[in-house]
Amino acid sequence: MTNAGPMPGVAASVAAIVRAAGEHVPLLLASVELRLAEIAQTHGPLLGRHAGDTIAAGGKRLRPLLVLLAAGREPDDPRELLACAAAVELVHSATLVHDDVLDSAALRRGLPTVWAQGGRELAVATGDLLFSRAFAELAAVGTIKSVRALSRASSALAEGELLQREDAWIAAVAVERYLYRCELKTARLFEAACELGAIAAGEHEAHVAALGAFGLRLGLAFQLLDDVLDVSGAAQQTGKHRGTDLLDGTVTLPLILARRRDEAIAAIDLHEIATPQQAIQLCERIEATGALADARAQALAIVVEAKEALAALELEDRQRLALDLVADSVVDRRA
Amino acid sequence: MTNAGPMPGVAASVAAIVRAAGEHVPLLLASVELRLAEIAQTHGPLLGRHAGDTIAAGGKRLRPLLVLLAAGREPDDPRELLACAAAVELVHSATLVHDDVLDSAALRRGLPTVWAQGGRELAVATGDLLFSRAFAELAAVGTIKSVRALSRASSALAEGELLQREDAWIAAVAVERYLYRCELKTARLFEAACELGAIAAGEHEAHVAALGAFGLRLGLAFQLLDDVLDVSGAAQQTGKHRGTDLLDGTVTLPLILARRRDEAIAAIDLHEIATPQQAIQLCERIEATGALADARAQALAIVVEAKEALAALELEDRQRLALDLVADSVVDRRA
Repeated sequence: MTNAGPMPGVAASVAAIVRAAGEHVPLLLASVELRLAEIAQTHGPLLGRHAGDTIAAGGKRLRPLLVLLAAGREPDDPRELLACAAAVELVHSATLVHDDVLDSAALRRGLPTVWAQGGRELAVATGDLLFSRAFAELAAVGTIKSVRALSRASSALAEGELLQREDAWIAAVAVERYLYRCELKTARLFEAACELGAIAAGEHEAHVAALGAFGLRLGLAFQLLDDVLDVSGAAQQTGKHRGTDLLDGTVTLPLILARRRDEAIAAIDLHEIATPQQAIQLCERIEATGALADARAQALAIVVEAKEALAALELEDRQRLALDLVADSVVDRRA
Repeated sequence: MTNAGPMPGVAASVAAIVRAAGEHVPLLLASVELRLAEIAQTHGPLLGRHAGDTIAAGGKRLRPLLVLLAAGREPDDPRELLACAAAVELVHSATLVHDDVLDSAALRRGLPTVWAQGGRELAVATGDLLFSRAFAELAAVGTIKSVRALSRASSALAEGELLQREDAWIAAVAVERYLYRCELKTARLFEAACELGAIAAGEHEAHVAALGAFGLRLGLAFQLLDDVLDVSGAAQQTGKHRGTDLLDGTVTLPLILARRRDEAIAAIDLHEIATPQQAIQLCERIEATGALADARAQALAIVVEAKEALAALELEDRQRLALDLVADSVVDRRA
């Protein structure tokens, strides 16, 4: 995935969203991209290379896009909004770098990870720097409110990681606890992205909260569908092999649901799933129970809830359309 | 080192400082201690155990003490000041946890590290959480100015770590580059601690800057003396073996100075120093050149500069005395 072209970092499927939201969105996204590249460069060649690669490998810029869409119309002075969008993506990038240390992952979206290129020392420090720069970026032009939103989200991210380690290999984990893990690991940063956009646009508290609720649900659905993709197999999309979560001992909704429907699956000790081939076989057995369709349906229901969170808000038509489209794009990732 | 007693976390040598600064200082330090324990506890038993241990092992609470001393007299509402003091110590603790991952260190001040107890996954996530909580703590009651100061310092910390990795094993590193590394790795957080105290006290910009300059120099001297201690050998104080830096490939001022004085030392490839016994022998050879006394003298000169940075400031006598004493305590660590 390259970041060149008229809409840097934004996948083709997101183009419709950008069209709905207005011409300022691709321009601001391009500014965010420039700012991220600048930040990667201002810390010497070592960080420039590694952080730059990570930021570039970060993907579709969904979180900065949410910041811009939550803000609505183009601000007269876009500096605060841009800082919010960059800060959210920096926190996301920091998490990716640290995740790769945790998972000892060699590739992310087809590119070598910082961990693989420079070892865990470099990866831990690079993640720390991206983290710190996120707050520096926000503090330079933002408000204490926006720092509050971002720090809550980044605390949640780390807590989610801890929860995931704590629950690893426990196939019998409760669905509520799984959902809470998804909220911490993924949804809270989506929530913060939407809150930050609304805060930068000067919206009142109830408006900020409603957009936050939209983002939270969207993030939850995003994680659920991500977990479905891992089992359904879409390596070319996720850059991972089918059943990676199972090999990591990460118990997700498809397995939780399949264990209720198939006693033989419920009896499996995840430690026995040791080879990619065994993981693929378990994925097929999970799929055969109908658990994937069920998990997908749960995710879609949460996307509906996300849209409903915006129902009472007064939004311009084009902003509402853009937010609806971004919600739909989360669902369409399996296509 | 336990944190019990009337002045929790404050070593006996710091008692004189506290006496000079006023009765409110030990009381506020006790509140900081409580707050840190609370934060460690609010994230479940897993973090409670690991983060709590790290925070407890963090040592003398020098950085929170600097925050309180830089603020001067007791504020009517101490919440912002307490948040600043806790935030600085949380960033410091986060760095310690991540450092232990980098160094694969089993012990810190005689206690098992998070890395040793829970593995690198847990340690990376625990550090991330402590980091995030630092900013959350500050953002809850602080100002955007204080977030700015802390995020600058935490960016510097990570950059310093990267610089150290980049320069590892390079015995011919320039002294300026070594000093810059010390500034990034250590001094900037001391600077931020002093700035934060002055900001919380509502001081004007020049006053904040002067206290920051004091803290920066103090931190620089602290790191130089730390590096001297590593070579002079004071394992019972630092909890490390003599020559640990040499075994890690970390080139510090004593080696840099000794290489100028002894061609045989200059000819050594650090990769050849592979056993603790070899490290101790090299420490003895470095000491024999007089490089330790020289490095110590440089550190003392920087402490003098630190005090001079306060010369033009209008401070109450007891605040100036307390700051002078804390500067002297940095020097006295070798005693």
